[in-house]
Amino acid sequence: MTVRIGVIGTGAIGRDHARRINQVLGGAKIVALSDVNRASAEAARKDFAPDAMIFETGEALIDSPGVDAVLVTSWGATHEQYVLAVIAAGKPCFCEKPLATTAEGGKRIVDAEVAHGKRLVQVGFMRRYDAGYIALKQAVDSKIGAPIMVHAAHRNPAVPEQYVTPMAIHDTMIHEIDVLRWLLDDDYVSARVLFPRSSTRSHARLRDPQIVILETAKGTIIDVEIFVNCHYGYDIQCQVVGEDGIANLPDPMAISLRLDAKKQSEILTDWKDRFLASYDVELQDFINAAAKGTASGPSSWDGYVAAITSDACVAAQESEGAAISINLPDRPSLYN
Amino acid sequence: MTVRIGVIGTGAIGRDHARRINQVLGGAKIVALSDVNRASAEAARKDFAPDAMIFETGEALIDSPGVDAVLVTSWGATHEQYVLAVIAAGKPCFCEKPLATTAEGGKRIVDAEVAHGKRLVQVGFMRRYDAGYIALKQAVDSKIGAPIMVHAAHRNPAVPEQYVTPMAIHDTMIHEIDVLRWLLDDDYVSARVLFPRSSTRSHARLRDPQIVILETAKGTIIDVEIFVNCHYGYDIQCQVVGEDGIANLPDPMAISLRLDAKKQSEILTDWKDRFLASYDVELQDFINAAAKGTASGPSSWDGYVAAITSDACVAAQESEGAAISINLPDRPSLYN
Amino acid sequence: MTVRIGVIGTGAIGRDHARRINQVLGGAKIVALSDVNRASAEAARKDFAPDAMIFETGEALIDSPGVDAVLVTSWGATHEQYVLAVIAAGKPCFCEKPLATTAEGGKRIVDAEVAHGKRLVQVGFMRRYDAGYIALKQAVDSKIGAPIMVHAAHRNPAVPEQYVTPMAIHDTMIHEIDVLRWLLDDDYVSARVLFPRSSTRSHARLRDPQIVILETAKGTIIDVEIFVNCHYGYDIQCQVVGEDGIANLPDPMAISLRLDAKKQSEILTDWKDRFLASYDVELQDFINAAAKGTASGPSSWDGYVAAITSDACVAAQESEGAAISINLPDRPSLYN
Amino acid sequence: MTVRIGVIGTGAIGRDHARRINQVLGGAKIVALSDVNRASAEAARKDFAPDAMIFETGEALIDSPGVDAVLVTSWGATHEQYVLAVIAAGKPCFCEKPLATTAEGGKRIVDAEVAHGKRLVQVGFMRRYDAGYIALKQAVDSKIGAPIMVHAAHRNPAVPEQYVTPMAIHDTMIHEIDVLRWLLDDDYVSARVLFPRSSTRSHARLRDPQIVILETAKGTIIDVEIFVNCHYGYDIQCQVVGEDGIANLPDPMAISLRLDAKKQSEILTDWKDRFLASYDVELQDFINAAAKGTASGPSSWDGYVAAITSDACVAAQESEGAAISINLPDRPSLYN
Repeated sequence: MTVRIGVIGTGAIGRDHARRINQVLGGAKIVALSDVNRASAEAARKDFAPDAMIFETGEALIDSPGVDAVLVTSWGATHEQYVLAVIAAGKPCFCEKPLATTAEGGKRIVDAEVAHGKRLVQVGFMRRYDAGYIALKQAVDSKIGAPIMVHAAHRNPAVPEQYVTPMAIHDTMIHEIDVLRWLLDDDYVSARVLFPRSSTRSHARLRDPQIVILETAKGTIIDVEIFVNCHYGYDIQCQVVGEDGIANLPDPMAISLRLDAKKQSEILTDWKDRFLASYDVELQDFINAAAKGTASGPSSWDGYVAAITSDACVAAQESEGAAISINLPDRPSLYN
Repeated sequence: MTVRIGVIGTGAIGRDHARRINQVLGGAKIVALSDVNRASAEAARKDFAPDAMIFETGEALIDSPGVDAVLVTSWGATHEQYVLAVIAAGKPCFCEKPLATTAEGGKRIVDAEVAHGKRLVQVGFMRRYDAGYIALKQAVDSKIGAPIMVHAAHRNPAVPEQYVTPMAIHDTMIHEIDVLRWLLDDDYVSARVLFPRSSTRSHARLRDPQIVILETAKGTIIDVEIFVNCHYGYDIQCQVVGEDGIANLPDPMAISLRLDAKKQSEILTDWKDRFLASYDVELQDFINAAAKGTASGPSSWDGYVAAITSDACVAAQESEGAAISINLPDRPSLYN
Repeated sequence: MTVRIGVIGTGAIGRDHARRINQVLGGAKIVALSDVNRASAEAARKDFAPDAMIFETGEALIDSPGVDAVLVTSWGATHEQYVLAVIAAGKPCFCEKPLATTAEGGKRIVDAEVAHGKRLVQVGFMRRYDAGYIALKQAVDSKIGAPIMVHAAHRNPAVPEQYVTPMAIHDTMIHEIDVLRWLLDDDYVSARVLFPRSSTRSHARLRDPQIVILETAKGTIIDVEIFVNCHYGYDIQCQVVGEDGIANLPDPMAISLRLDAKKQSEILTDWKDRFLASYDVELQDFINAAAKGTASGPSSWDGYVAAITSDACVAAQESEGAAISINLPDRPSLYN
Repeated sequence: MTVRIGVIGTGAIGRDHARRINQVLGGAKIVALSDVNRASAEAARKDFAPDAMIFETGEALIDSPGVDAVLVTSWGATHEQYVLAVIAAGKPCFCEKPLATTAEGGKRIVDAEVAHGKRLVQVGFMRRYDAGYIALKQAVDSKIGAPIMVHAAHRNPAVPEQYVTPMAIHDTMIHEIDVLRWLLDDDYVSARVLFPRSSTRSHARLRDPQIVILETAKGTIIDVEIFVNCHYGYDIQCQVVGEDGIANLPDPMAISLRLDAKKQSEILTDWKDRFLASYDVELQDFINAAAKGTASGPSSWDGYVAAITSDACVAAQESEGAAISINLPDRPSLYN
């Protein structure tokens, strides 16, 4: 069976997923496209999906009987309404992050999916599909004993002027928030943020770097350095300290050179290159589950919890080092 | 357009390619299967290609108008006849190594393809599609100056009793023979083999390890350690020494642990895991070219040259360290 | 000129320094020994210093006109009295850590040295003499831009039952307290301690691991993981994040092996091996300065500041994550 | 007891050893200096050995009853005569390489020492005292099974115009010749040299790089890349392949940086920095043995064997890849 997929939002990520599904992955086909800017949808059809039909609205696309499953890759503020509509239509839905722009929006989606009675939504937290994180999780689960601490870093060479302090949580740290929950199979109970002096490369509305400290229900402490003006490269580090030993996330493959009096290997500078392969894997996972009428991977619940945690972290940015509690509602059994 | 593919030979590698094409890759579909053991073809159909038709003979499969392109994954001794038949049918053909069991057989295929007038054959030298070798080639071409020496190693933890000295060339070194020609964009002019004392893990009919030394037309010297009883793991090393610096093939991704008083990371032990991802890439390349009625990647000419070089290396095994000349015929313009 | 050295306290470290001075280093000679246990001093004389005279008391040794300089390697609680006596005698003094068991004691020594008018005391913070830290300091000063954060770890495989929570500061973290001030050329303004759940290898009176967070006057934030039951080895990590890049303390030299399906290299398990070479360098520095009648390297002031900082860290252990201020007196000009 | 040492030859290395003995090491003192250029000896006295007496000739220094042991650090062509004179005087002698400029000269020294009846001579092969090689030898002896192959490289960034092809053996490879015999506890039976095309940075009288292949009595094959115009740095590599695994010589300590989109660490560029610490250790070993009236470490026999092996390698440079036999005389029991 070929899963017939509609895409709502044909900006950069929507186009890229359309290309991926039609040219790289197996088992699915892009049959429908929609964008507030119709020319954008037409361009995507021309470039990647010649057989796709263009719909005037996302809602029309969602309701089309020729569409088996939907990708929501539109502007973030519209995610909630589309995801709710896809759930209402009983179709599998892949939604790029954020699932919703507020925790309340996330709750509405979770409630709708629970009411529906089976999983339909996969959130685009692609790191869970990265080969490095998967290998790290295997090591955490089997080699180093129960985890006690995590030391992580999320470094970006530079950000534009409009990037302000809370975005370090909502746009950057959000990936650590999700992937570390998954890695540790645990939930957060508090957040704390510490600010060293800011880098001279930062600006008035951005305190950068910052250290976010999360505590989990099992008592693990996680420190995450967020440094979005680190200058030297895009660099994701994750070290898990367990009772018996330590495991480190591998760096991306790079040729080791001996050149110019240095042993050297390249560090990426563009975040888009870092988890490139994992987008293929996450969408294949979506296709495979959609073929069975359901969804797997990061769930609505995960998206909702990430939103609650993000809000706590942003509150912690204003709390001068004091811990902000994170109180999660009970987890519906659908997500166990 | 979906490329309709027939597979001749449904042993391990044939099955795996069928799975890959139908479940992982885009743009093609397995429509036909054939095997001397019909039950094997039926099992492959059941497991990976429910819509495929089973043909009594490879020739019938090749000639079927419903088959656009053919994979030859049968027993090595039958490759030549099938590839010649696919060329005769004017269809793209992916042939697992060896292209033919003799250099003469390789020549017959080259001649047939040249007579046909455009490329139809891709030989299954998958290392050219490995992300590590591709990155190494970029470094060799752009970072370290013109290459002067290559130090390589091909190590396998153990081999069965029937593995004898010439197989270290035909089955093992064959991959270095192809990939280093491609890496250096060069041809070999001589081969030499040196034998240290054999490992105590070797046996009477296998001298192991051995050091194969190739000289190229441009004057590069390549030393390749072949050690198929190295015990510790499956390990492929390649270091290129250029005028300005040195580039090394990366090791496969592995989690770095601190455990049991050791910094440690795993080394693979099964050769099948080492270039796993490259099989996907090579077959996608085949599909993409086949959709245009042609072939790219490793050619018949490459397969033929590898056979000539292998023969020289085996002769060098008997020559007590003396150099054996490698004389290639002129390269047909089809392969430039 | 040969510096004639007396050693007060001939336990393990005193004996080892005596051996070092008489057998490894140049420019000095052990001429006097003293220990509360006279047999211990006699054993040291027999083993390492056959020409040394044995004194009944440390004070007598200090006052002997045949003694040019003094090593205080006795029980920690006696350090203050001996160092004050050596200052009173106007002789150079090398004192193992702690300089004094209280900050007040440190202040008395500083006051005495300031009154004397030139430096006489070197405190045994040997890490400043470690080749790795020296190279790291060069990189911090010249390569990576102004430091903003430090991520450090001090891990020990196991500790005895009598090791309790405050000792993680006084006996373990004390080295980071000194060496990071030196590395950053900065002073601390606050300390905070966070406790994850304790390792199952810990015991009732020891919360282990802990994360000590120091903030400096220049706004650098330092996190130090102290984990004295880490099981896997003795491991000192230090990463400095600067405006332009990152520098890491090198691991000790170790042979890289490929063995048993692992790339592996040994991690030390005994702290005594980690900074072995730096003891030679620190004592040679003491000898060289003592030959000129003065002292260099870690000063009384450094010892005093370390004591003040340690006290704040211990207070922070009881403060549930709140920051404890560190208020230093003005630095006497003698120590600029 | 303090060993009273005389130094013949106060050029760069002689001065440096004098400094080392008087300022860094314990147990010895420079009491005598001699140089064909008296001003050079006077400068060395002024800088490093104020109490030393200056002798008009090396012979007079050797015969002085105030001199217990002699360092021969004069021009290479004079080594043999001085070493023979020191042996005749029955005193311990440290001789920088070469022990003699011909194999015959080496034999004369061996014969004289054997006639004397106990070891008096240590040759300045400092690599045996390098911490990295010592750790490598421990790994070879205890971890990786019996050695079968060695892959080594000796790379230098550039050489002056007067450096010609045979000097790659006599001045450069000579260190590998000695240290690999020691590492493997084995002797050479043949040498072979292969030349790739020369680097464009080489010149008419220097074929560079070259690959020297040595076979040992136990059947180990060693390949050594000698590349003295490698441009990128001074780099010594040594990998031993044993029956069970592989051990690698560690690189010198270097700070690992993340900077400018690269993980990077410095490679030395000046050979003088590479084995700096090992000079201290080798001379301390000489002092310790001299205090007992004898010598240890690399012997006259080792120097003689190195000369025989070098001659074979130079002959192999002219033999177009053919193996040149290395026939050693019987080893006198003094050297077992």
